[in-house]
Amino acid sequence: MNIFIINSGSSSIKYQLFKMPSTAPVCSGLVERIGSDDVALTHKVTANGEEIKRVFKLGKADHEAGLNKVNELLTDPEFGVIQDRRDIQAVGHRVVHGGERFWEPTRITGEVKQALKKLFLLAPLHNPAGYTGIEVAEKIFPDAVQIAVFDTAFHHTLPPKAFRFAIPDQYYTGNNIRVYGFHGTSHGFIAGQAAAYLERDDLKLISIHLGNGCSITAIDKGRSVDTSMGFGPLSGLIMGTRSGDIDPTVIFYMIDQLGYTPEQVNDLLNKNSGMLGLAGSNDMRDIRKAMAEGDANAKLAYEMYAYRIKKYIGAYAAALNGVDVVAFTAGVGENDVFVRKMVCEDMEYLGISFDANKNSTRSDGIREISTDDSRVKVLIIPTNEELEIANQCYGLLYK
Amino acid sequence: MNIFIINSGSSSIKYQLFKMPSTAPVCSGLVERIGSDDVALTHKVTANGEEIKRVFKLGKADHEAGLNKVNELLTDPEFGVIQDRRDIQAVGHRVVHGGERFWEPTRITGEVKQALKKLFLLAPLHNPAGYTGIEVAEKIFPDAVQIAVFDTAFHHTLPPKAFRFAIPDQYYTGNNIRVYGFHGTSHGFIAGQAAAYLERDDLKLISIHLGNGCSITAIDKGRSVDTSMGFGPLSGLIMGTRSGDIDPTVIFYMIDQLGYTPEQVNDLLNKNSGMLGLAGSNDMRDIRKAMAEGDANAKLAYEMYAYRIKKYIGAYAAALNGVDVVAFTAGVGENDVFVRKMVCEDMEYLGISFDANKNSTRSDGIREISTDDSRVKVLIIPTNEELEIANQCYGLLYK
Repeated sequence: MNIFIINSGSSSIKYQLFKMPSTAPVCSGLVERIGSDDVALTHKVTANGEEIKRVFKLGKADHEAGLNKVNELLTDPEFGVIQDRRDIQAVGHRVVHGGERFWEPTRITGEVKQALKKLFLLAPLHNPAGYTGIEVAEKIFPDAVQIAVFDTAFHHTLPPKAFRFAIPDQYYTGNNIRVYGFHGTSHGFIAGQAAAYLERDDLKLISIHLGNGCSITAIDKGRSVDTSMGFGPLSGLIMGTRSGDIDPTVIFYMIDQLGYTPEQVNDLLNKNSGMLGLAGSNDMRDIRKAMAEGDANAKLAYEMYAYRIKKYIGAYAAALNGVDVVAFTAGVGENDVFVRKMVCEDMEYLGISFDANKNSTRSDGIREISTDDSRVKVLIIPTNEELEIANQCYGLLYK
Repeated sequence: MNIFIINSGSSSIKYQLFKMPSTAPVCSGLVERIGSDDVALTHKVTANGEEIKRVFKLGKADHEAGLNKVNELLTDPEFGVIQDRRDIQAVGHRVVHGGERFWEPTRITGEVKQALKKLFLLAPLHNPAGYTGIEVAEKIFPDAVQIAVFDTAFHHTLPPKAFRFAIPDQYYTGNNIRVYGFHGTSHGFIAGQAAAYLERDDLKLISIHLGNGCSITAIDKGRSVDTSMGFGPLSGLIMGTRSGDIDPTVIFYMIDQLGYTPEQVNDLLNKNSGMLGLAGSNDMRDIRKAMAEGDANAKLAYEMYAYRIKKYIGAYAAALNGVDVVAFTAGVGENDVFVRKMVCEDMEYLGISFDANKNSTRSDGIREISTDDSRVKVLIIPTNEELEIANQCYGLLYK
């Protein structure tokens, strides 16, 4: 079964094609800078262990034009991977926010689309882009089943003590203000991988997703019980450009005393804070380089980034009454030797015995970076949100 | 040496008189409802183990009139405790915010008063009231040394990774936006008491102050290394009427989508959230009663209150790489059997073995509520901020 996965952002479309049940994508790609005059498409095909990569300049193009070009490439005489667009049986869409209603992979119908539109309010930056992806895919692949998989879904098991804020009831019951959590597809994938790798389904797991966005989730027997992103994707860990947790008094102070509008503060905390705000870059490689050259701000930024993660590990160990596995994933989590070291050292109290050598040895796949006798296993688990979405779509169609 | 301690709020003055080095106050009292037409003064004198209590109606009175009445009582023929107001050698003032400058008990001079005024911006609700207390005390006790002791002072040892927010540098260097932390006098007192009780000065201690305001502090060898209140006294634990930590996106959502002004949101989070917002009361006794009667909101409020504390204990254990002592203090911490139980149970991973019987047995002074073989000691330590202020004043004058 050919399942085509689309992750549609406001100015980009990421995609992969899976021939399920095989878990390796047969092609993948990215349409970027949508909305500009300089839209680019990078398309990769893997066949017989070889990768073909092509880059196309699309000039001015919208989501539909971009996806039409992708569709042409799928059936390209030279490096096409299917005969006909009707060979795509399902299109799986990453949708950021499922609210309280959507927490399973969901066949998209007219009614579902209406419900998705109502969720724009909760994810104004992300859900409209996902919706556009759905509408475009419906046109281009009219014979395929369209399925939405939600980034919030994995967190639908949070207990009220973890998902409620300490504000009056009415804001939850009337305004849907609660912790939803994000990166659920990734955390769910990590939970599955950890359970399979260790052959245990009773794990107390702390999953740490460190990409441009960062979040951490406490997982008990495969179920999310707490997570650091909340109502929106700003809270919790320090991120590339986002502040993560911050005393609310700072917000009111900036408005009252510094003359900022709420929108300016929101922009500051989302776009110009985090590592960018602290160290002048949101590329961890740049920051490591600056730190190596003695830049005090870069050093502080790294210390804060790691310290915040460390404290969340501690908090979630308390939530779980212990922890069996700590897993790092996503771009920074999988690749940043230094962050993992700063987070995991001086954590003997919890039963983490960290192996700095293993940590700095690169390899593919899942690997352990704790010592053999460490009570808590520390793992690096490469995430694969597209595969997880494909698996969920496959599961839905075969249920 | 007679040291008179004043804790001046916007509508109240609390006071105690110590004859140092004796640590029991010879008199204490409260002027309340200042600013109304119905100001009341409650004055207590302890002599020979007996307590005399008098309540006076002062009608309309300001801070000065209230403190003048207190001064009369100090030298009252019947139950006065000193001969003459000049017998007061020092007046110790609780001042909430010392900014980055003041972190030791400080003799008040004209220059210091100017500097205190500049700090109004950082603590607009609290510092002006403390300042009024100073000005009034200077008039009434002109011969006494006036000394300020700061609620932020104990936290001046926070490392940058704990006191900085993940926002651009300029907000710290230019606008003094950082974590200051509060309840420092109480946490410092608890640190001293714990060290003396256990005869160890190398403790990893987590001090939990649960009153109307609530905060928790990680203390390493007597030094504060992290604390839950931040730039202002809103963040961290769930409190009587304050939300504690909340996703900043909620604030922007209330402003953008619910049409609130920033001031309304600030008021909501400070005055109508926390236990009041969740359970309809900020009196833990009412909430326990409602919970016993099956009120689901009361139950959830208690669960959230305890769960937040539990997570902070976990986070601070990670910050300290372990913990030797967890100490509860202040009104709720010293008296609420139920909160302590909910916080300490299911914490075996950390080495806490909780003794529910000891927990529910009342007694005075410091007491242990962990089992004898618990790796982490859990203590109840009654706080005494006035005594701590008196001790600090005494120390300053004898240095």
